[in-house]
Amino acid sequence: MTYFHRGKSISEERQMKEQHGIGAGSILRRRKDGVFEHAHDELTIEEPLEIRLADKTVATTMRTPGHDEELAAGFLLAEAIVRKRGDVAKISHASDNVVVVDLAAGVKPKLSSAQRFGTISSSCGICGKNSIEAIRQSFPAIKSRSLRIDLTTLLSLPEQLREEQSDFARTGGIHAAGIFEIDGRLKIVREDIGRHNAVDKAIGRAFLDGLLPLDRHLLLVSGRASLEIVQKALAAGIPIVAAVSAPSTLAVNFARKNNQTLIAFLRPPSFNIYAHIERVILGDA
Amino acid sequence: MTYFHRGKSISEERQMKEQHGIGAGSILRRRKDGVFEHAHDELTIEEPLEIRLADKTVATTMRTPGHDEELAAGFLLAEAIVRKRGDVAKISHASDNVVVVDLAAGVKPKLSSAQRFGTISSSCGICGKNSIEAIRQSFPAIKSRSLRIDLTTLLSLPEQLREEQSDFARTGGIHAAGIFEIDGRLKIVREDIGRHNAVDKAIGRAFLDGLLPLDRHLLLVSGRASLEIVQKALAAGIPIVAAVSAPSTLAVNFARKNNQTLIAFLRPPSFNIYAHIERVILGDA
Repeated sequence: MTYFHRGKSISEERQMKEQHGIGAGSILRRRKDGVFEHAHDELTIEEPLEIRLADKTVATTMRTPGHDEELAAGFLLAEAIVRKRGDVAKISHASDNVVVVDLAAGVKPKLSSAQRFGTISSSCGICGKNSIEAIRQSFPAIKSRSLRIDLTTLLSLPEQLREEQSDFARTGGIHAAGIFEIDGRLKIVREDIGRHNAVDKAIGRAFLDGLLPLDRHLLLVSGRASLEIVQKALAAGIPIVAAVSAPSTLAVNFARKNNQTLIAFLRPPSFNIYAHIERVILGDA
Repeated sequence: MTYFHRGKSISEERQMKEQHGIGAGSILRRRKDGVFEHAHDELTIEEPLEIRLADKTVATTMRTPGHDEELAAGFLLAEAIVRKRGDVAKISHASDNVVVVDLAAGVKPKLSSAQRFGTISSSCGICGKNSIEAIRQSFPAIKSRSLRIDLTTLLSLPEQLREEQSDFARTGGIHAAGIFEIDGRLKIVREDIGRHNAVDKAIGRAFLDGLLPLDRHLLLVSGRASLEIVQKALAAGIPIVAAVSAPSTLAVNFARKNNQTLIAFLRPPSFNIYAHIERVILGDA
């Protein structure tokens, strides 16, 4: 049975939503000139996604539909439940808002993570930890110090990210995360109503493609850099994290400790470097 | 023992941090004219807060220190663990980043909430739900339809909120939530690195002061309106929610269903009304 709605079948509409992450709604708008008008407004879609490991729910997160398998993969990586591509046998939808992850035969979630099952709960990676100590994930610090990005490349990244976003996304209704190669080529862009989800999706894609560690890459987020963002980058081995907006104190401390370069307020021509400045070639922009 | 740091004792520094929610760090800045300079930068403080109910941890959230008791109270209200002021006997710090809530004698957390103990996990109110069904909280819809806000008042709110924020907050490093009376008087403003925390703190303050239900009030948030925001407002009985940025689809659907007025992109002179327009008097601005 197919239901039609404004000329589109429900499944077509769902597909459209998943492709663009937006829905439409009827609203009353007050324009700048003070005139009221009825209008249709695009809205960021927000729906819950339940992530199951075999038959156990490990997380429910509010996300923008689409790329759910990547979100699940990125989340499990950031939680240190999986470490490498081969740990995951299959990720599939049980229903629209439920994904099931099957681990490879013989792969057991690490005890330290497994202990937190039932309390792991959000893509933000913090929620659900039953104690503050548990927040510190155990990923090795970045080793390499040889990688460097030049100034011209760094300054080109925000515009590249914006160009890949939809018009709608640029209005600020949705977050974006981009993974760049060190020479500035954009490899993966993902968008989501949740900043952490956008990062999980981008990193999850790279994980599923067997590209980890991303040790010659940079992660750029369209918003702020909180602890979670740099932590997720570390899980993927990313040595440089950049953000268009502000970092938090914990993000800065975490990056300094783990040998990650942290750049924020990246709004060309200006930016700030908060940690491990040695990876930025400061001349010739 | 007291440690000194740039002329301030640690405890003084902590007090300063808690008052302003900011820290300072040494950075390298590239100015708009391309010149690099070493600078001190203000950062939003982000630290984990563990919320305990008696001896059981019910949530750990990343928050900006300060007003932790309010955050705990607002969180427990939004989770329907407490319903009225009298349910809470005492909220106190066990340490800097741990608050303990003692319920009044004879008050048992509702079973439906208690069942989720160990999975409730974040101020966002979504994380930790073990099933998608559990996401829908059971708060009654707003009953009154008589309350109305006039246009001039509505348009004055964002500027009022901004005036109460610190200079630092205005740069976007921190979220703000304000509770206004229907005539436009600002009652409570709270700031936090997490949008949901800012709302929990503002509503938690009102809860602790015995002001609920806030049935003649409006909640304004400095960012986007997700499901959680309107849900938390409903828990406090707030009939009108306004946001400076975009709403999500679920927030709109939730507000429509629960008889809440939802206004977003409130950027005077323009704004959009997404739900229950009847509470806005459209003339005379």
